[in-house]
Amino acid sequence: MAAARAPDAPVITVHVPLGDRAYDIFVGRGLLGEAGARIAALGARAAAIVTDSNVGALYGGALADALQQRGLRASIITVAPGEATKSYASLETVCDAVLEARIERGDLVIALGGGVVGDLAGFAAAVARRGVRFVQVPTSLLSQVDSSVGGKTGINSRHGKNLVGAFHQPSLVLADTALLDTLPIREMRAGYAEVVKYGLIDDAGFFDWCEANWQGVFAGGPERNEAVAQSCRAKAAVVVRDEREEGDRALLNLGHTFGHALERITRYDSARLVHGEGVAIGMCLAFRFSAFLGLCSADDATRVERHLVTVGLPTRLQDVPGGFGTVDELLDGMAQDKKVKAGALTFILARGIGQSFVAHGIEIAKVRAFLNHEIAATRT
Amino acid sequence: MAAARAPDAPVITVHVPLGDRAYDIFVGRGLLGEAGARIAALGARAAAIVTDSNVGALYGGALADALQQRGLRASIITVAPGEATKSYASLETVCDAVLEARIERGDLVIALGGGVVGDLAGFAAAVARRGVRFVQVPTSLLSQVDSSVGGKTGINSRHGKNLVGAFHQPSLVLADTALLDTLPIREMRAGYAEVVKYGLIDDAGFFDWCEANWQGVFAGGPERNEAVAQSCRAKAAVVVRDEREEGDRALLNLGHTFGHALERITRYDSARLVHGEGVAIGMCLAFRFSAFLGLCSADDATRVERHLVTVGLPTRLQDVPGGFGTVDELLDGMAQDKKVKAGALTFILARGIGQSFVAHGIEIAKVRAFLNHEIAATRT
Ligand SMILES: NC(=O)c1ccc[n+]([C@@H]2O[C@H](COP(=O)([O-])OP(=O)(O)OC[C@H]3O[C@@H](n4cnc5c(N)ncnc54)[C@H](O)[C@@H]3O)[C@@H](O)[C@H]2O)c1
Ligand SMILES: NC(=O)c1ccc[n+]([C@@H]2O[C@H](COP(=O)([O-])OP(=O)(O)OC[C@H]3O[C@@H](n4cnc5c(N)ncnc54)[C@H](O)[C@@H]3O)[C@@H](O)[C@H]2O)c1
Repeated sequence: MAAARAPDAPVITVHVPLGDRAYDIFVGRGLLGEAGARIAALGARAAAIVTDSNVGALYGGALADALQQRGLRASIITVAPGEATKSYASLETVCDAVLEARIERGDLVIALGGGVVGDLAGFAAAVARRGVRFVQVPTSLLSQVDSSVGGKTGINSRHGKNLVGAFHQPSLVLADTALLDTLPIREMRAGYAEVVKYGLIDDAGFFDWCEANWQGVFAGGPERNEAVAQSCRAKAAVVVRDEREEGDRALLNLGHTFGHALERITRYDSARLVHGEGVAIGMCLAFRFSAFLGLCSADDATRVERHLVTVGLPTRLQDVPGGFGTVDELLDGMAQDKKVKAGALTFILARGIGQSFVAHGIEIAKVRAFLNHEIAATRT
Repeated sequence: MAAARAPDAPVITVHVPLGDRAYDIFVGRGLLGEAGARIAALGARAAAIVTDSNVGALYGGALADALQQRGLRASIITVAPGEATKSYASLETVCDAVLEARIERGDLVIALGGGVVGDLAGFAAAVARRGVRFVQVPTSLLSQVDSSVGGKTGINSRHGKNLVGAFHQPSLVLADTALLDTLPIREMRAGYAEVVKYGLIDDAGFFDWCEANWQGVFAGGPERNEAVAQSCRAKAAVVVRDEREEGDRALLNLGHTFGHALERITRYDSARLVHGEGVAIGMCLAFRFSAFLGLCSADDATRVERHLVTVGLPTRLQDVPGGFGTVDELLDGMAQDKKVKAGALTFILARGIGQSFVAHGIEIAKVRAFLNHEIAATRT
């Protein structure tokens, strides 16, 4: 059972102004203790909680009880932990369970878990009865700072990650930062890569802040709330500018084109690489590629790498346990990525820390030359 | 190969004004011959044609050729005919095939077929890459007058029909009425039930027109184009008032609450009952239920039934081959339907021909009494 929020612990509210799809993100320690009241305020009669077995065992009962105490009919749908759960088969299982629970149009699906649960449950909510409302209760750092905000939901196809899904905004996001106390350190680090990302995209000051305050974020001090809230603000700002990922929003993919290729090569085997680790390596590659192309200083690329190494994240192709495949496999993995426009590769590159931009039509030959150079460098 | 449209054959355009999701429906004989030009005008580079094996064998090659002649990369994805194809398994097959065909965000999925293909392909288009554009080339009367217009897409769950899906508007609808020349007569009649529905909802004059002109519709004269176009106008008007089915749009479900229950009881076995036949019986039940409740004259109910009998449609529970189950099974089938609000049953009832309305909170006891009365009546 989660500890109740101390009366003096602050709650930070981040509003996401998306017209009739606007919603609030609440960030704070102990918010799960208030979930009953905050979710009941949405006015549903029933809620289906989707969670994975790790998170469900820790927090599922507490959330269901809190809802029942407020008069909501609550049921729990448990899926297996891990990326393999973002599958067509799980979509069927969760949708059918949501229908079985007689969730109607005004009712709720609640995602209680990391990004895997959020993406899957959000997609199920988007398509069950052609759309029911959903609430995100993100429990991993990655999901608190990234996946629970913005409405992208989905599953993986054998052709690649997140290739099937929907845009479906949550009605509410409750980010209880105390839940991160039970998160495995490796997952904590992986989520932290996404925090750093917001600094690298367009906020050099926030990157400075990360360098100075990362220990508080990991330790669970007020810095953790601040890092989560600031990340949500940054992500929300991009989402509001480009809800359906037609332009600007692509900046959020900094590190993801390389990262997804690595995840594909490691077959989404989290024993080898988790998403945030792929992103960490990918961001370093994006900065080094920018330096290679003469767009950004080598010093900035080094500074990015140094900070990620400090917190314990992988930063190089050779850091991938079991190997990263060949250059051709990497290129193929990138071309499969959905951020491909008309055959040419699109990358997020940078002119420096906090100065990222979308670079369309990058020639494959240049990427190949860079990757060969990287591999040669890491072999020395 | 479809015959080209005669130069003097008129094309009727119905515009669906849905803001940035607005689109045109073109209705005419021989439109398939112009599909290449009309679809190429949307500016895509590639198209995946989804069709069933019946329709694909007749028209798939012609459409693919027409697209290729206009420089589009075209591929064909063939599914099995029949309602069972609206499944999670087919969704996976079609989505993966769309991704395999490297359909990107600007490209197209084209539904070439009846409502089954339209609903499935539209749903796949809604979720592949979180949404690609799609074009409807409806080939059954039902799909030309109903399912291809309005953006409702989806598949069936073991909990009921159409319970999983998305709202995804097409970019273009091409209704070539000449294609109906190969449609089995039973399917033609089933689609005609939906034509009549528009008269019954709110256009008594159109019901009069149907009584006078139905033979031309079946024979393929200009009345067929007129019936399709008028149906599209009627449906589009409702969809524009209520795109996401939160109010008015429910009127389109006239006959569907009973109809879906019958489809469920006959296990979606088209040898026993096809959708439009269920709707025909359902509309007659809705009018007789309205008369039973004293809302509408028995004469109007009789007139509805007489017209449907004239064209060869079933109109009574006893017309269901193999039986219609028990009253409890019927009630259970209705309660499962997604048009249930907070436990009470919602019906579309009528005060007369062209005077339908949404009736919320109809007591189960009244429905039970009516059904018992119906069964007793049909036994005599
Ligand atoms: N939708 C988006 O915009 C978006 C953005 C980024 C990433 N993602 C997706 O998010 C997924 C990765 O999310 P993730 O990193 O949270 O992975 P995850 O959901 O697999 O969670 C990681 C692990 O931590 C466990 N866990 C979660 N919270 C815990 C807690 N409080 N205590 C103990 N254990 C806990 C989980 O059971 C799991 O084993 C990927 O599938 C990625 O594609 C989506
Ligand atoms: N999305 C919506 O708004 C909406 C509305 C109404 C109905 N529907 C759905 O539509 C489906 C029923 O559609 P349907 O009646 O078109 O069924 P269907 O798609 O199964 O087609 C009926 C049969 O006719 C064949 N066929 C189609 N066109 C033909 C042609 N030109 N020549 C020869 N054979 C042809 C098909 O192969 C099939 O065997 C149901 O699943 C129903 O739920 C959806």
